[in-house]
Amino acid sequence: MSLHLQSTESGRLRHLLTLEGLPRETLVALLDRAQAFVDHGGAADPRTALAGTAVCTLFFEASTRTRLSFQRAAQRLGADVLGFDASTSSTSKGESALDTLRTIEAMGVRGFIVRQREDGGAARLAAAAQPGTAVVNAGDGRSAHPTQGLLDVLTLRQAKGADFARLKVAIVGDIRHSRVARSELHALRTLGIGEIRACGPAGLLPGDATLDGCGVGDDLDAALDGVDAVFMLRLQRERMAEGLVPSLEEYHRDYGLTAARLRRAAPDAVVLHPGPMNRGVEISDEVADGPQSMVLRQVANGVAVRMAVLEALLA
Amino acid sequence: MSLHLQSTESGRLRHLLTLEGLPRETLVALLDRAQAFVDHGGAADPRTALAGTAVCTLFFEASTRTRLSFQRAAQRLGADVLGFDASTSSTSKGESALDTLRTIEAMGVRGFIVRQREDGGAARLAAAAQPGTAVVNAGDGRSAHPTQGLLDVLTLRQAKGADFARLKVAIVGDIRHSRVARSELHALRTLGIGEIRACGPAGLLPGDATLDGCGVGDDLDAALDGVDAVFMLRLQRERMAEGLVPSLEEYHRDYGLTAARLRRAAPDAVVLHPGPMNRGVEISDEVADGPQSMVLRQVANGVAVRMAVLEALLA
Amino acid sequence: MSLHLQSTESGRLRHLLTLEGLPRETLVALLDRAQAFVDHGGAADPRTALAGTAVCTLFFEASTRTRLSFQRAAQRLGADVLGFDASTSSTSKGESALDTLRTIEAMGVRGFIVRQREDGGAARLAAAAQPGTAVVNAGDGRSAHPTQGLLDVLTLRQAKGADFARLKVAIVGDIRHSRVARSELHALRTLGIGEIRACGPAGLLPGDATLDGCGVGDDLDAALDGVDAVFMLRLQRERMAEGLVPSLEEYHRDYGLTAARLRRAAPDAVVLHPGPMNRGVEISDEVADGPQSMVLRQVANGVAVRMAVLEALLA
Repeated sequence: MSLHLQSTESGRLRHLLTLEGLPRETLVALLDRAQAFVDHGGAADPRTALAGTAVCTLFFEASTRTRLSFQRAAQRLGADVLGFDASTSSTSKGESALDTLRTIEAMGVRGFIVRQREDGGAARLAAAAQPGTAVVNAGDGRSAHPTQGLLDVLTLRQAKGADFARLKVAIVGDIRHSRVARSELHALRTLGIGEIRACGPAGLLPGDATLDGCGVGDDLDAALDGVDAVFMLRLQRERMAEGLVPSLEEYHRDYGLTAARLRRAAPDAVVLHPGPMNRGVEISDEVADGPQSMVLRQVANGVAVRMAVLEALLA
Repeated sequence: MSLHLQSTESGRLRHLLTLEGLPRETLVALLDRAQAFVDHGGAADPRTALAGTAVCTLFFEASTRTRLSFQRAAQRLGADVLGFDASTSSTSKGESALDTLRTIEAMGVRGFIVRQREDGGAARLAAAAQPGTAVVNAGDGRSAHPTQGLLDVLTLRQAKGADFARLKVAIVGDIRHSRVARSELHALRTLGIGEIRACGPAGLLPGDATLDGCGVGDDLDAALDGVDAVFMLRLQRERMAEGLVPSLEEYHRDYGLTAARLRRAAPDAVVLHPGPMNRGVEISDEVADGPQSMVLRQVANGVAVRMAVLEALLA
Repeated sequence: MSLHLQSTESGRLRHLLTLEGLPRETLVALLDRAQAFVDHGGAADPRTALAGTAVCTLFFEASTRTRLSFQRAAQRLGADVLGFDASTSSTSKGESALDTLRTIEAMGVRGFIVRQREDGGAARLAAAAQPGTAVVNAGDGRSAHPTQGLLDVLTLRQAKGADFARLKVAIVGDIRHSRVARSELHALRTLGIGEIRACGPAGLLPGDATLDGCGVGDDLDAALDGVDAVFMLRLQRERMAEGLVPSLEEYHRDYGLTAARLRRAAPDAVVLHPGPMNRGVEISDEVADGPQSMVLRQVANGVAVRMAVLEALLA
């Protein structure tokens, strides 16, 4: 459903719900446009691109950093931003997400940045939207977080160049529950990545086709050997309560990225993390703040990628 | 008090606190201006009308849709918007609503959009405001919600034309506790509506003069017979706890607007609802989403009406 | 640390963390610029001064009025404003304030308005900020609230002229726990105030060097005798639970500023209060709303002072 919804017949992107099946040329065009925004910096803000256009952050799950990043992207394009926070809203009066979208849409809002707890939540809203309304999935359940996937491959491209076929990368942590991992996997495959190694404790690896074609294992040292990039994932603390992880200490011992471990990767390997980081759990301070860490560059790229997406959908 | 506060000696509107007693020509001028905003759409935003002017949404009761609608209206006029949410504010430190208004007013804010739990809450703030400050009542207790009344009659006028004398309408539901109903009644009477029928369970009908001149009854089928428009009201779930309504199921059976019931109205009758809707309670999905439903047009008209009001008070 | 952080080698202000040690000419320049903003009013907003620049209100402690004042100041300078409210943010996911600042900074935000519960909280963030990023302390623990101190002395200067050497002032209330008092004291001393009298119950007076050079006592009548200005402080209600104040009634009897008491001051003495006021506790309604009250003028000056600070740091 998502793929059909995303594209109009002319091939123009209508929504951005997932990176799965997104044509390579569309993905590369978004990265190229984002790179242009990075290169121009704040001084050359294309303030008029979305002047008079209203977008709404429609968050049914709290996420300050993603919301602020989209808000900043919209501001830099000159859009008006409305914020809807489900915790204080009329959804507590029993209104459905669908009625909320339709209502705000009727106010003349043309772009929705949607965060949902449920898989497929953004696609369901997109399916109900009027022609001319665009939905960006800012994370739905375990399924997808496409702008995170885009900003991660943009960061990798900046560090390692566009020839992904010669690159080896590792994805480490709770892949099973991670929409970030799924969007990263889609983007990396679309760009023809040479090799993907997935690593995590057995209980946090997906049982479905998510990792088809990847090397899969639970030995971090082996997974890191010679890779050009490490995509670390955030460990949600509820995994402990669910019995999927014994303790933070054990997790850190077995799957935490430390400086010593990172030396197994290629000497110029880069480390990515979607944030917020659990320092001392999946990543040590030394790595998080070290020269190979791309964490803050990812954040900066996030604004640029979201500008490119909003412009592509709404301008 | 409200009427005196609303007008300056020159007859210009100073605040908008209630539609009760608002001169017909003032009300019609607001509708005409709102219609012009509807006709021009988003492309012709009069961005400079309120440029440099700050307005504040001062909400002592949560209401996302009303707040967003006013916010969008202010944005389209080029105003700066500040938001005050009483749940996280210094009112929790014991500051009164009056001191809050005076403080934000001293920051140079000229327009206040006020939502209050108490009847007369907006008028009390208006009475204390400095010359040059305008207060818009965005709902106070059971008393008034004037912009909702305006957007409802604008919607009716779009559907049925300006000759209200030949129209029959029904207002259905919890009229007793409804500021929306009171503002609708004031607007309909000012515009010379032909006939108003009020319908609801006895415990939800007002005992005061609210319905003077209306046909009043508890038989929905009779109330709908041949009407040109049905104004449905939201059922607050706390009415059950208060013993005023036996159950949602019984309420729906007796007062829910279904497609079968709607056929008793005129064939081209329109259905209005202030939202958020309790689907399956006061209105069925079929009606809510059907061709006679004006619900989303009401929302669109709401932004236009609020633009007209803010412009009239502040430009 | 703060002094070093505040200034670049060129003497230009980089952050504003405290008024302690701020050179007199820097302080006076900020007041003069703020006065120019007051004189021009809203009509001559220098909308372009910070156009394209993003600032973030980063509040780890709720404060609606301070947040709105900074937001309005930023709007009047044409800046984009992002809001971070710690209560709904990823700090609840365990992210540190430092990682939060770095993340939002990486989004291209250049100014941070920081409210922290901990003493030195803003300075710690400033120490970690990138070159080109400015931090304004909007209140940290008991230490400093520099823009409040600035707006208070601007208000005093408007009322009494710039020759502070001939002025006697009293500071009354919970000085021990007050960042407002500390910033007022720094500003008054820097401007060469003639005499400062500090007054409050013994348990609410600081034991450190805060009041060096001040007359100190617990007799309000004596403290008020002939002063040109009274700086009242807010009584936090938790002081009762801590046993530092017996009851609101006794506090009002001994330290509440009433019209009768105010007559002990000079006939044209002015009264300042940072707000929100506890009416009937530290200040009576008659004084709060009387002709000698500067409370609302302080609020208006607050926006102007914050414009001057943001412009000095970011333009």
